[in-house]
Amino acid sequence: MPRADGLARAFRFLGKRWNAVVLGHLSEGAAGFRELSRAIDGISDSVLSDRLTDLAAGGLIARTVEEGPPVAVSYALTDRGRALMPALEEIARWAEDHLPRDGC
Amino acid sequence: MPRADGLARAFRFLGKRWNAVVLGHLSEGAAGFRELSRAIDGISDSVLSDRLTDLAAGGLIARTVEEGPPVAVSYALTDRGRALMPALEEIARWAEDHLPRDGC
Repeated sequence: MPRADGLARAFRFLGKRWNAVVLGHLSEGAAGFRELSRAIDGISDSVLSDRLTDLAAGGLIARTVEEGPPVAVSYALTDRGRALMPALEEIARWAEDHLPRDGC
Repeated sequence: MPRADGLARAFRFLGKRWNAVVLGHLSEGAAGFRELSRAIDGISDSVLSDRLTDLAAGGLIARTVEEGPPVAVSYALTDRGRALMPALEEIARWAEDHLPRDGC
């Protein structure tokens, strides 16, 4: 079985609805707040802001500020975040195979 | 990148703190409510009850009632839930490798 304590630790981050989706988007490359907000269907700005803070505190993403003008803030996966991508891809494949597209 | 819509659908279930941990425990075999409650450190009975209902509604676990007396209720992974285990094992491995045991 999956190690229970490992799962519990991982899902302190992943066990919030949008965190994995945010990570999935950043796997395409660094992105700014607006870009993420537009790309992720259904997330509010306040929730996105909260999730980015959470993921950065856990070292899964890094926030970079480029001094402007204009000041540009972007978010990118760290090595720790990138190392999670194969598992997230497997979960996305599972959803394709096992979860109906509507309902549930 | 992981398919965004697949991730979003998967994390309708997994994006709740305890769901993956409950699934991980059931990967060892069917279990009753008390057994799960004791095995999962830190979960309250009302949250566990809520999670079991959620996972059953999504078809990831099945609830079996054995007519007694005494009546015995047990929970077990379905094929859909079992198919998720390799991905959860990969996530648990990632946590072992990348998340410090204390803090975060």
